[in-house]
Parts: sequence; C-alpha cells; structure tokens
Amino acid sequence: MPADLTSHFLLIRCPDERGLIHSITGVLFGHGLNIVRNDEFVERQDNYFFMRTEFAGEFESETLLQELRAALPAAAEIRLADNRRKNIVLLVTKEHHCLSELLVRHAFGELNAHIMAVISNYEVLGDLTRQFGVPFHCISHEGKTREAHETEISALLDQYQPEFVVLAKYMRILSAEFVAPYANRLVNIHHSFLPAFVGASPYAQAYERGVKIIGATAHFVNEQLDQGPIIGQSIIPIDHTHSASEMAQAGRDVEKIVLARALRLIFTERVFVHRNKTIIFD
Amino acid sequence: MPADLTSHFLLIRCPDERGLIHSITGVLFGHGLNIVRNDEFVERQDNYFFMRTEFAGEFESETLLQELRAALPAAAEIRLADNRRKNIVLLVTKEHHCLSELLVRHAFGELNAHIMAVISNYEVLGDLTRQFGVPFHCISHEGKTREAHETEISALLDQYQPEFVVLAKYMRILSAEFVAPYANRLVNIHHSFLPAFVGASPYAQAYERGVKIIGATAHFVNEQLDQGPIIGQSIIPIDHTHSASEMAQAGRDVEKIVLARALRLIFTERVFVHRNKTIIFD
Amino acid sequence: MPADLTSHFLLIRCPDERGLIHSITGVLFGHGLNIVRNDEFVERQDNYFFMRTEFAGEFESETLLQELRAALPAAAEIRLADNRRKNIVLLVTKEHHCLSELLVRHAFGELNAHIMAVISNYEVLGDLTRQFGVPFHCISHEGKTREAHETEISALLDQYQPEFVVLAKYMRILSAEFVAPYANRLVNIHHSFLPAFVGASPYAQAYERGVKIIGATAHFVNEQLDQGPIIGQSIIPIDHTHSASEMAQAGRDVEKIVLARALRLIFTERVFVHRNKTIIFD
Amino acid sequence: MPADLTSHFLLIRCPDERGLIHSITGVLFGHGLNIVRNDEFVERQDNYFFMRTEFAGEFESETLLQELRAALPAAAEIRLADNRRKNIVLLVTKEHHCLSELLVRHAFGELNAHIMAVISNYEVLGDLTRQFGVPFHCISHEGKTREAHETEISALLDQYQPEFVVLAKYMRILSAEFVAPYANRLVNIHHSFLPAFVGASPYAQAYERGVKIIGATAHFVNEQLDQGPIIGQSIIPIDHTHSASEMAQAGRDVEKIVLARALRLIFTERVFVHRNKTIIFD
Repeated sequence: MPADLTSHFLLIRCPDERGLIHSITGVLFGHGLNIVRNDEFVERQDNYFFMRTEFAGEFESETLLQELRAALPAAAEIRLADNRRKNIVLLVTKEHHCLSELLVRHAFGELNAHIMAVISNYEVLGDLTRQFGVPFHCISHEGKTREAHETEISALLDQYQPEFVVLAKYMRILSAEFVAPYANRLVNIHHSFLPAFVGASPYAQAYERGVKIIGATAHFVNEQLDQGPIIGQSIIPIDHTHSASEMAQAGRDVEKIVLARALRLIFTERVFVHRNKTIIFD
Repeated sequence: MPADLTSHFLLIRCPDERGLIHSITGVLFGHGLNIVRNDEFVERQDNYFFMRTEFAGEFESETLLQELRAALPAAAEIRLADNRRKNIVLLVTKEHHCLSELLVRHAFGELNAHIMAVISNYEVLGDLTRQFGVPFHCISHEGKTREAHETEISALLDQYQPEFVVLAKYMRILSAEFVAPYANRLVNIHHSFLPAFVGASPYAQAYERGVKIIGATAHFVNEQLDQGPIIGQSIIPIDHTHSASEMAQAGRDVEKIVLARALRLIFTERVFVHRNKTIIFD
Repeated sequence: MPADLTSHFLLIRCPDERGLIHSITGVLFGHGLNIVRNDEFVERQDNYFFMRTEFAGEFESETLLQELRAALPAAAEIRLADNRRKNIVLLVTKEHHCLSELLVRHAFGELNAHIMAVISNYEVLGDLTRQFGVPFHCISHEGKTREAHETEISALLDQYQPEFVVLAKYMRILSAEFVAPYANRLVNIHHSFLPAFVGASPYAQAYERGVKIIGATAHFVNEQLDQGPIIGQSIIPIDHTHSASEMAQAGRDVEKIVLARALRLIFTERVFVHRNKTIIFD
Repeated sequence: MPADLTSHFLLIRCPDERGLIHSITGVLFGHGLNIVRNDEFVERQDNYFFMRTEFAGEFESETLLQELRAALPAAAEIRLADNRRKNIVLLVTKEHHCLSELLVRHAFGELNAHIMAVISNYEVLGDLTRQFGVPFHCISHEGKTREAHETEISALLDQYQPEFVVLAKYMRILSAEFVAPYANRLVNIHHSFLPAFVGASPYAQAYERGVKIIGATAHFVNEQLDQGPIIGQSIIPIDHTHSASEMAQAGRDVEKIVLARALRLIFTERVFVHRNKTIIFD
C-alpha cells in the first residue's frame, strides 16, 4: 500500500547486538502487521542501533509495546507514532520569509503540523499571521531583562504545551534555562552553513570572508549557541557581485526551504538524535 | 566493526510478502552472523522487495544459501557476494578524461575492480593505458562494417570474460546483438542529463537549446540507445558565455566523476535493476 | 553608490562592430552620468552585441536616446528602463505553491512588480488571492472550446494591459494565437528540467524513466509547447524511494524558487532574448 | 572570433572614477584592436574598479601601455597578458588525487600551465610523477626543523622561479616567512568549506559536528592558516552513514575538481585579489 496511507511508525533505539532486526520484525509479523518501509542504521562509534518502521494493520498499542520490550534489551527506547499532525508554536522576529513559508504550507495542509500560535517580539508579522487564521502574540523584549522576557514567553508556551517550538528567524539569543525543557523539540534555522559564521550577522561575516557559497542550517537548539544537532543544510553559489544584503536576499530562499524540509523530516518521524548529531531516514 | 572490513554481502530480490525481513535475518542470526549494515526497499508499483545486507562472520556458502532458499518464496533471487575486485574491460575512443580517471583510481587501489584491458577503436589512448601497466588493444573500425567491428571486439571480450564492460566515452553505437549478452553488465557514461539530448552531440544540442544546466548520466546499456536504467546523474550550471566546446570542457569534469561514482556503487554491490530503473543502497 | 539605489538602466543590442563600448560609454560620460555597473557580451555565432548599464545621474531621456542612436549603428535597439515595478497578471489553475510564493513576495515588496490580477480556470485559489488584496477572476474552461476560453482570457488581459503575463502553474495549453502578442512577455514555469519531459505529467514521466535528478525550468513561451527561451533552471536529487507524487512534492520547492528568481531577473532588466536563448546579466 | 583564439588580455585595477571604461576602450579602439570579451566590476566598499579585456589584433606592448597609463589615473595598475602557459611547481605530500588530476590535465594540454617540477616531503608520489615525465624532488621533513625544511624547499623553488606554486594536498603548515614572497602566487586546496573546519583533520571535525554537507576550498595562501582569499568552493551532500574516512573519500572528488577549476581561472587571467577576496571574471 502507498506509504502515504501508512498511519503507524515504530521508532527504536538500542545498544546494538545480534538479532535485533529479527526480533523486532518477528513481533510485528506475529501481530499480523505489514511493513511498508523499513530503515535501520548502526552508529559504529558506540555501536548504537536505530530503526524506523512504517507499518500498517490493526494492533493494540500497549500489547505491541510490551512484546517489543520483552524482545529487546532493557536499554532499548521504543516509541510508537502515527501521521497525526504535531502541535507546534512558532517564534519569529521581523523577517517574514520563513514564517510565510510555514503559514502557506499550513494553510494547504502540507506542514504535517498544527500551528497553534505565533509569538513575536514585534508586531510586524501580526497581520500576516492573523490573515492565515493563526493566533498571534506580541511579547516585546523592550525594557525587559532577557530573563523577564523569556519568562513571559515560557509562560505562554506552557499554556499551549507545543510538541515542538520552531524559531523561524527568531533573532534573540535564548538562554540555557529557556532551552533546557525543549531538548530535541526546539528547531532553529541559522542563516549560514554551520559551523561557518556562527552567531550574529552571518551574511556580513560571509561577505567579509569572500566565500563563494552561502547556506543555511536547520538544527535542534541546545544550550550552546548554534552548536546543536544539525538536521539539514543547503547552499547557493554567490560571487563578488553580491553585497552583504544581496547575499541575504539570495540566502532567504535557502533558509525557508531548508527549514521547511527539516520540519517535514521531524514531523514524519524521520529524525533520531544521537551524540549531538542526527540520523535521518528520508 | 567498520563497514569497510566487511567482506560479505547478501543480495535478495523477491515478490514482497509479510515476514521477509524476519525470515532472512533469522537465517543470518541462526548462523551466528552479524549484520553490519542492512538496507531494504519495496517497490510499490509491483510490490517487489529488495534487500542488501553487509554481514560478517564465518559461514559455509552453500548451507547458508540453502537455508535462505528454504525460508523465502520460490521466486526469490538470492546472491552472496564479497569485497573481491570485479574483473572489467574498458572501451574507449579518443577522449582521455574518463579513462584516465579510472586508470588513476585503479593504480591506487580505489576502483574496487581489476582492469584487465582497454579496447579502443583508435591508438590515441594507447600510451596512457600502457603507462599504467594495463593491456591496450586497438581495434579500428575503419573499413569495416559495424557488425564486423563488433565481432572483433566481442571475440576479444570473450577471451577476457569480464564481469563488467565499461564504455568510458566509447563513441560508437553498439548494436542490440552486441549488447544482448551484457544485460546489467555494460555501463555507459552519456554526456547529457538523460533523457535530455540523447544520441550524438549532446553539447551542441544543449548549446542550441540554451539550457542553463548541463549534466552527465551513467547508465546500464540496453538495446535502445541511451534508454537503459540510470545509475547516477550530476549537473553543473552554465550560462550564455559558454560556447558548445566550453560546455563540453565543463561537462568532462562531471562525466568522469559520475562514471567513477556509478562504478563504485556497482562494484560494491549497491545497485539493483528493476523495471528499467535502479534501486541503489548507498 | 549602492546598486540598489540605481534607478536607470540602458539596454542595448546591436550587430557587433569595433568601438561600441567606447561610443556608448562616451555618450554617458558626456552627459555627466556615472556607471554603477556594466555588463556586456558578444554572441559569437552571429556577432551580436549586448550591453546592460546601470547608471545614475540626471538626464533627459529623449536627448540621451538621440545621442546614443547617433553614436550607434542603425540596427541598434536602444532602451532606457528604471526600477519602476512592472505591471503583471498571473494565470493559475489549482496548485498554490507558485502563486503563494509570488503573492507573499508581492505583499512584502520583494517582487519588483505590481500584480494587477490573478486569472484562473478554477475558483480554488480565489480565497488565497483575495486574502492578499489582489483581484481574482475565475474564467472556467468547462463547456467551452479552447478558442472561446482563450478569447475570454485575452479580453480580460486587454483590459489590464500587463507588461508581463506569468503562468504560475497554469495547466492549460495555450494556442499560438493566444501566445503571439506576448513575445518575451509571457513566462512559464515547467515542472521538469527542459528539454527532458516536455508536455504533460513530467513527474510521472520522470518516475518511469528512473532519473536521479528532477528539476524545473522557467522560460518565455513561444508557439511551440515548452520550446521557448530558457531563463533559469534548478534541480534536486531524488532516489528510488520517491514515488511520482513524492517527486512532485520535492519538485514544488524547486518550481517556485526557479520561477521567483526568473521573474526577478526579468523585472530588474537582466534578460536579453536572442535566437531562442537568453543572455542574462546577473 | 572565438574566445579561445584570443591571445591577449588587458587587466586593469584602479580607484573608480567616471569615464574609465570609455578611456580604456578608446585606447584599444585607437590601436585598431578588437574586443573579444569585456568584463568589469566596481567594488563598492572602497570604489575600486576592475576590468578584464580579451582582445585581438596587432600592437606594440610598450606603446599600448604608455597610452593606457596616460589615459588612466596614476594609481591604476595595468597589466598585459596572453595565453602563454604559466610555469608552475607543485608541492605534494602523500595523497595522489589532486596531483594526478593535474598531471593528467597537463599531459593532455588542458592545464594552461607548464609543470616544471613536483616537490614532496615523501617519495610516495615519485613514480606517478616521473611516469608523466615531470621532475620529482623528495625533500623529507624528518629530522629537520620547520625552518630548515622550508629553506631547502625555497632554495629549490628559487632555482625553478615558478610563476605559481600549487599546494596540491601538501600537508605541512608553511611559515609566514616561506609564504611572504608568494603573495597571490601560492594556491592551496583545503579539504573543507572554509571558514568551517580550518586547520588539521577537517573531515574528522566535520564528522564530529554532524554536518550534512562537506566541501573543499581553493584559496591563495597568506600568512594566516586557511585565511587567504578564496578562489573557488564546491560541496557534496553527505549523511549519517558516512564515517570520517568515507567523508574523506567523497571529499577527494570535490577537492581535485575545485583545485583544477581554480587553477584554470588563475591561469586564464580571470582572478583579481582585493581586500582578501577575489573578483573572478568567468
């Protein structure tokens, strides 16, 4: 049956040992389930096993999980998931391109997610957001400490309880305290090809260095600025005729597509995070 | 253990049914074998299953094959392979770039193949070939019918019994009769992005059409010119300043790399051919 | 001064002869004008000269043109242009991605054009269009001959008098009669890497051929389907896991960016058309 | 006439002012010379003008230069060049791929340069070099201070007096003293996408960071490691299945092509260096 009608995913990570694939597929087979697509990988540095199985059929979740736990090592992490749209909140600042890309995809059912709200430290993108029928909250940073500002945002996020928070060109640095509860659930788009040009003004930095390629990187955010696990990157060639602002113009196309693709990968359960890197079954 | 020390591959193709992965991995597990890397795919158009398993351990081939046949449907095709270098013969005409790419990789042990000989319809590339210690045979086409010329080449190939024949910018059209014994064993590099610009002078055609991208395609050769299963393609952007010969210059870099990568995929048992297309586990 | 503040462009095409650059720059210098950026090219096949000059300063158009005509061969075509936004009309069918890309850029002043209206043969994209404050006209094709349908569209276009008509995934074939008045003013985005997969269902064709790369092409429309001068192309790699519909999904990102970039090139006077090809000063 | 038959280039750099193109083209026109191709650019940060003119015709160099100097500001740097092959020396260590790429192109007249010699700190690449008829010098670094080793190499280079020195995967760090006499004449290929992963083991660094793209950068060497003006860069996508050594394998194809292309640009007089960046008229 077509993969896009599959509604179930089994995601397993486990210290590697002989017989894992056999055990897991045995449990699925025993439940009368049909594997639509299977991908697995063993990370050789520390012999860690990862498997993503798209499957179809009828089953009772708890029973299936119990049998899998019984068949696998105690250290195995086993998760069932489905095609259900993820609840997400977007954080933005002033630039529209990543936000509009996501709002449009969302409006046409192409995002695999439900945008519960958009939070911004400016009002600038309010009209665009409301135009698409999405709640918009402006929480200005002006006159507040970083801590106070983040506390307000966190409070609002706590009300929404998003599964993922997406920084869609949100331009303020987030503290380790803010980030800590969102391990592997906070996605950022950085406007450079990491690890080149971390931090502020990457296009100005790129212009100064005289690179012939610029890029964008989607990554999970950890406590260290621009150091989290990379999900996807893409580039575009440039030349001496590009000023820093023309680089930024060219780069925006890359940023929004890289972010949208990274979100698709995450929301369709294709991404594992391990040792500050991602394993992606695309 | 590192994938590059694995010496065994199991390659299976089979009409899909429930339980295949479980059965196959069960046989391997039963033999005490360790899976280093596993890739599988089901072609949904006709529900055909493909699996490539890199594994390590001690085993007796015939026993393992018998058990696999017993565990799988009768229509399953099962093949064991290893890291052994493939015996190949190259066919060339006058251009050096693909030939030199392969001769250099071969000289440094990077080709996963043993070049038994180079056959050409001109003497031009003889010195280069002999310089690398590879036998060179010039079989001119002049004054001969296509049939007569091909008969001479086939006779020589029959002496060498290559597992693969590589057309490394061999510029003469091969007849269906010549091609027929080499199904999925005859590789060509075509200097365009197929299916654009089939046949002769693709760069001149590209120049006339005013494309902004040119490319190269490595494919298995079947009886129809440039219609065989595509293994790999790559492109390079061009612009109005490129004459047809400048396009050809830029294209040569792409051609040799595309051919070399395609051969690596084939020689490391990563390529299945199905319905005139390739399934590639890279 | 920064190129983005330049308000004037001089666009010249002319049979090549010695001294053209000297003559043209002499006229500009004589008028006290400052060249911000200059690009020129001679098409060698028929020795045709093309030049694009961004310049700044005060001048009287008719005087400047007269002096240029006097300084250049009689066959020279000389045009003055500026940063003024072009008036355009979009034609669409049901897919939203190219339309939304342009509507968003338009809303944020990034399109270098004024979208006067959107015409569609379905109502589907009406809400999206009106949401962005752009007039939407649904002219259904159902129950009408192609000629009658096109006559209605032409009548509406005649009211708007657009400088450019953009087919943003407009899926009906346009007759030679419809196209004829819009030479080099009618832009289409074709969802393949031309000349591969012309006509209908290019993704289905690409799926059947088993290509490893898909692409999109922006081109001016002439009387022959998909044969007009190519403005820009881009590609994305794919593999055996992509169904035809998944190829289409991946391809849509490419289509909208290719179209947007092509329009930017056209609207900033960077494109010359010659012998069914484009010369682009980017 | 075809650009490839042009034998003369005029390369000018100059503080920008009105009328430069007019003056320069006026001098050429006055000498009865025909411009085959012209490219110019003004660097806006400090208003610096660059022009590269390919021209044909008969002329006396000193007369032409005098007239150009008279027509241009005193600060103008004016240089005449032609298609003559540049004399170069290569420095290598143990890896063959960049060296073999250049030796092969050289053997077939595609390098626009004459390789006078290859110098290495190991004997490993001696056979390959001599096989192509190029003198090979092994100057080991073992048991010597860096200074002493470099002194030996410099002495040998002084005998050859190369116009350019190419570090074709020469893996020892060169001191500021060694580099100083070779401003804009010493080219390196760095196996990363600069400024990412400077210094040693960029593939190991890339593996640790979990990037999804690796690349290579050709640049002129200045006194700061990996900080010199970038000439060209290219990339290749990778994924979680690549070990550091597999990244290196994939990267080698990119390195050799990036280096070869950068050298073609330099040897055909297409590269200006300004403010630690390059202006490239390709």
